[in-house]
Amino acid sequence: MVAAGTRDDCLADWGEFAFIDFLARHPALAQADLEVGIGDDASVWRPPAGARVLTTLDMLVEGVHFDLASTSAADLGWKALAVNLSDLAAMGGRPECVYLGLGLPPATAKAWLKEFIDAFLRLAECYRVRLAGGDTVRAGELVISVTLVGSTTAAPGLRSGASPGDGIYCSGTIGDSCLGLRVLDGRLAGLSEADAEFLKKRHRRPNPRLALGRKLVAAGVASAMIDISDGVVADLGHLLKRSGGLGAELESGRLPISAPARRVLESGRVELVDLMTGGEDFELLFTAPPSAAAEIAEIAAFLELPVAWLGRVVGRAGISLAGPAGKIELKTKGGYDHFQSQNQ
Amino acid sequence: MVAAGTRDDCLADWGEFAFIDFLARHPALAQADLEVGIGDDASVWRPPAGARVLTTLDMLVEGVHFDLASTSAADLGWKALAVNLSDLAAMGGRPECVYLGLGLPPATAKAWLKEFIDAFLRLAECYRVRLAGGDTVRAGELVISVTLVGSTTAAPGLRSGASPGDGIYCSGTIGDSCLGLRVLDGRLAGLSEADAEFLKKRHRRPNPRLALGRKLVAAGVASAMIDISDGVVADLGHLLKRSGGLGAELESGRLPISAPARRVLESGRVELVDLMTGGEDFELLFTAPPSAAAEIAEIAAFLELPVAWLGRVVGRAGISLAGPAGKIELKTKGGYDHFQSQNQ
Repeated sequence: MVAAGTRDDCLADWGEFAFIDFLARHPALAQADLEVGIGDDASVWRPPAGARVLTTLDMLVEGVHFDLASTSAADLGWKALAVNLSDLAAMGGRPECVYLGLGLPPATAKAWLKEFIDAFLRLAECYRVRLAGGDTVRAGELVISVTLVGSTTAAPGLRSGASPGDGIYCSGTIGDSCLGLRVLDGRLAGLSEADAEFLKKRHRRPNPRLALGRKLVAAGVASAMIDISDGVVADLGHLLKRSGGLGAELESGRLPISAPARRVLESGRVELVDLMTGGEDFELLFTAPPSAAAEIAEIAAFLELPVAWLGRVVGRAGISLAGPAGKIELKTKGGYDHFQSQNQ
Repeated sequence: MVAAGTRDDCLADWGEFAFIDFLARHPALAQADLEVGIGDDASVWRPPAGARVLTTLDMLVEGVHFDLASTSAADLGWKALAVNLSDLAAMGGRPECVYLGLGLPPATAKAWLKEFIDAFLRLAECYRVRLAGGDTVRAGELVISVTLVGSTTAAPGLRSGASPGDGIYCSGTIGDSCLGLRVLDGRLAGLSEADAEFLKKRHRRPNPRLALGRKLVAAGVASAMIDISDGVVADLGHLLKRSGGLGAELESGRLPISAPARRVLESGRVELVDLMTGGEDFELLFTAPPSAAAEIAEIAAFLELPVAWLGRVVGRAGISLAGPAGKIELKTKGGYDHFQSQNQ
């Protein structure tokens, strides 16, 4: 939980204006090229000439998106920004300005909040994103609302645009994050320390694939693109639906699985399909015509980031997975429903 | 409170995806000129050539910013957008795209949510703002996070820029909203029905002064500008501080007070200073050199919106109010502190 501070070390004592002052004077606060940042009625930013403006908003709520007992302030600060950066990566955008809305219980410890902001701003600094505004308000539970504004001068990568015959590609490896969560909440024990650490880190500190997204868009090779937040199956389903109700044939041998995840798989404690539906991978999933294969391989090599071919787009709806035991149809429900899940 | 629905008419039954579908198909959903709206990883918008992009984020929390017992869903939907439009008005911006983040208890009634969205989108339609994205998540209490993106091709109106000798101006009338709140929560009774309705409406349905903000910025006459959310004294204090630690001499006879508010004043139940510190006026407060007086009068006449001269900026910090009984110094605390207020 957010450690409740005494009168001297919690937010109620620190105060809203002292907190905003801490933010505005933070050494990692990038404000270069920003005409007006924190402190006016709105921020003022000049986009590059001819650019399109890309905007995404994500909300994270205590007890729903994260458990404060198993998530450090630093991990949460990192992830709150990383998930938005991942959305922007999926458009091929360059992140520009970020806006942080915080609903905070007054008993929030000052040290916790500083650690959260330090991690958030360190990640922002890595990608040269400016914290350009936000709002800090009292709330009964911790709520984080992040709006990220980016730009692109190329045509952005959309979820629509895939065609039958296109290849389906994925960056990095899948399923690590959901295994990491199981390690964290105690459902998966007995791994080597190195494997457990690897999987936990993949859950806690996702790496948004911004460089890959931008390269793909600049080269014009991806016909459709999405980032994996709900799992490969659900997000591929979103992409195929937006591309006009298409389907996919995946090959199980082509799915990119890390060595630690493969060892868990081989222990029989999870199945391959669990790794495809666990979510929070924050890798890029995209489609491209067969003619683009060599260029995709070049981009992957240049970025030293593995990009796997998983299968192909087909005209008939539905996602199938072909493996040694034959072909199975995967269920493509729409992803996690925040409200209905309570009833089921 | 948000009326808790039965299993058939609450959000838990309706579901997140049905709600998003309702939003995406709403007849008031303006999407013209938007390359990509709701449904992709980010929205895509092409700003006007040479424009600066203005962005503001506001969060509203149940029990902190509004009381669901005395606020209808429609009033809340209106106000959630109106307060952001007011921030943009203070920059002289043109509203372009809005992003709505909602943290919702699963027991929220479907009818309540529809009424909220209808009002939000009707106001958006009035000002040609496109709902271009957002996020809907489960939460323990109602949390509304609105990010508004706008543009300006002129130099935006900032809080900094006032100089000693500048006149201080204010649109509309002040203090109506705080009196309306007192009527609503029962602290102010016995008014005529018409007066009570006028004051309540001024609290529930603030009119963002977008046209005035844009005209002032286009004419280049305002040296500094802010919208009044914390009350004339606190917001003038913000503006003077950002302009380099200046002060102001106000004349009590020049403060714009509506006829209903004047009748409450004359009844002796509030003092003039209460109307200057109550907050939520959402009028524009700006400074301008004496040479701009005629142009400001012309703009006010063109818009048929009263703009009052309240006094002048002086080089010495502090805000004084001169009236028939002499001159008093007004306390310029920084405005409402969300966290410290709990301790005091």
